[in-house]
Amino acid sequence: MIASTAGGEAGPVAIICGAGKFPYAVADAVISRGRGVVLFALRGFAEPAKVAAYPHHWCHVGQVGRFVRLARAEGCEEMVFIGSLVRPSIGQLRFDLTTIRMLPRIIAAYKGGDKHLLSGVGRIAEHFGFRLLGAHELAPDILVPEGKLGLHAPSGRDLADITQGLALLAVMGRFDIGQAAVVAAHRVVAVEAAEGTDRMLARVADLRRDGLLRLSGKVGVLVKAPKPDQDRRFDLPSVGTRTVEAAAAAGLAGIALEANGAISADLPDMIRAADTAGLFVVGVAPATAASNKP
Amino acid sequence: MIASTAGGEAGPVAIICGAGKFPYAVADAVISRGRGVVLFALRGFAEPAKVAAYPHHWCHVGQVGRFVRLARAEGCEEMVFIGSLVRPSIGQLRFDLTTIRMLPRIIAAYKGGDKHLLSGVGRIAEHFGFRLLGAHELAPDILVPEGKLGLHAPSGRDLADITQGLALLAVMGRFDIGQAAVVAAHRVVAVEAAEGTDRMLARVADLRRDGLLRLSGKVGVLVKAPKPDQDRRFDLPSVGTRTVEAAAAAGLAGIALEANGAISADLPDMIRAADTAGLFVVGVAPATAASNKP
Repeated sequence: MIASTAGGEAGPVAIICGAGKFPYAVADAVISRGRGVVLFALRGFAEPAKVAAYPHHWCHVGQVGRFVRLARAEGCEEMVFIGSLVRPSIGQLRFDLTTIRMLPRIIAAYKGGDKHLLSGVGRIAEHFGFRLLGAHELAPDILVPEGKLGLHAPSGRDLADITQGLALLAVMGRFDIGQAAVVAAHRVVAVEAAEGTDRMLARVADLRRDGLLRLSGKVGVLVKAPKPDQDRRFDLPSVGTRTVEAAAAAGLAGIALEANGAISADLPDMIRAADTAGLFVVGVAPATAASNKP
Repeated sequence: MIASTAGGEAGPVAIICGAGKFPYAVADAVISRGRGVVLFALRGFAEPAKVAAYPHHWCHVGQVGRFVRLARAEGCEEMVFIGSLVRPSIGQLRFDLTTIRMLPRIIAAYKGGDKHLLSGVGRIAEHFGFRLLGAHELAPDILVPEGKLGLHAPSGRDLADITQGLALLAVMGRFDIGQAAVVAAHRVVAVEAAEGTDRMLARVADLRRDGLLRLSGKVGVLVKAPKPDQDRRFDLPSVGTRTVEAAAAAGLAGIALEANGAISADLPDMIRAADTAGLFVVGVAPATAASNKP
């Protein structure tokens, strides 16, 4: 078995768990290949009922020293940071001595956009001798593959909308925002910034309902892609069955995801939901430099 | 008086009136300089009670022949298209014979983004021998001037947010969207597409209230600017007292507008509202090519 062979290579993987389903999907993928895991569950973000099924420790955001000490004691050399983490309020932070020593570096990271914050985490991990991996390196099955993924296929108009969306996201990524947009009938109708994909899709549904966006029938594509220069160990754009539900409620024709640049913790379920709702789901190649002009 | 001299030059200006206050602000500005106006009020958009105070005709969107016949009979040679016009539904359109002959051209314009739609209107006007003017050419007072416009001034952090916002809008304009964004503490938190500025600001207020956007105190700037290659006879970004109210509700520090590239029908009232709310309002120079990189 490949699993047991891989198991001999290294100690358990330290999985720092934010919110959502991804931490457990990644943990299961690692375990299925015969390797151990230790979850470092972030209080207020990780789900206690899920966490309990794995070897774990609870941490507050900000307890760098606690993490380093426990992860070393568990024999972890590799770590992954997965799950959503809405920027914690100051009240949610707990600083230990190690963290306080790192504070200037952390504050510098906190001041920038998401990209800087997460890159800061990566540098801190390396400072303490851990190797920071991307979740998709440990659990390749969560990556969205290329091609038509369900029963339905994009039309020619949908393909044009997808091209336009990818080009827009490539340009916006330079501003450290925007892993998602909705393009409908050659028009960009919504751009995601701090609100997240589900709220952006709810907005499109509202605009259509209120007559501020006049589109007839199933039209428009949710396009998601990572930022062009993104550290892929963090924050790849993610989708799931809820994304399909929100896209269907917004009256879209389908969903286009950058192949190998977006993740799903429940891809088969998501594709089934899209098939049932009559939406296409496709994995598409990234925008090329040439297509970055509209 | 300049006004009466100008009055002798040409027939009345044909003002095609969409929704909002701008058509009447422009009409008043033209009249104050001694020139006549004829309002062509679009049913479902222009306000009957306001329209009644001026020489006028009612039209449906799509009645090109009716407009051409009436405007010629009134002696109009110059026209302006002003006021908001959410894309009319098919049911709101009335086509006359002239329109039907123009249909291939109109449909081509309708398919594109806003820029294409409005450029199509300009070409049609010229086809019939009218000169299409920008509202700001007839009513320069509606243009936002450069400099600090109220009591309050932007901080150094606000100025950095403004620079970032202008650079983002310049890049997004290539995709025919985005005359507005909110940047807070060096992070782009909202980008406007089809929803309009008021709804975008309401979203920022919601995100803060729901804890999805953690910012303390008055922070962030609403930045508005036209698209770099925009036909300035149409759809300059507009602001008013409602914009100030929405920006205050979103907890922003102020509003930055491209000087001579944004319009307000009630600028003095708006500035008073901003002074009272403690928000700055500034007219700023457009993003330079060099600043288009974040």
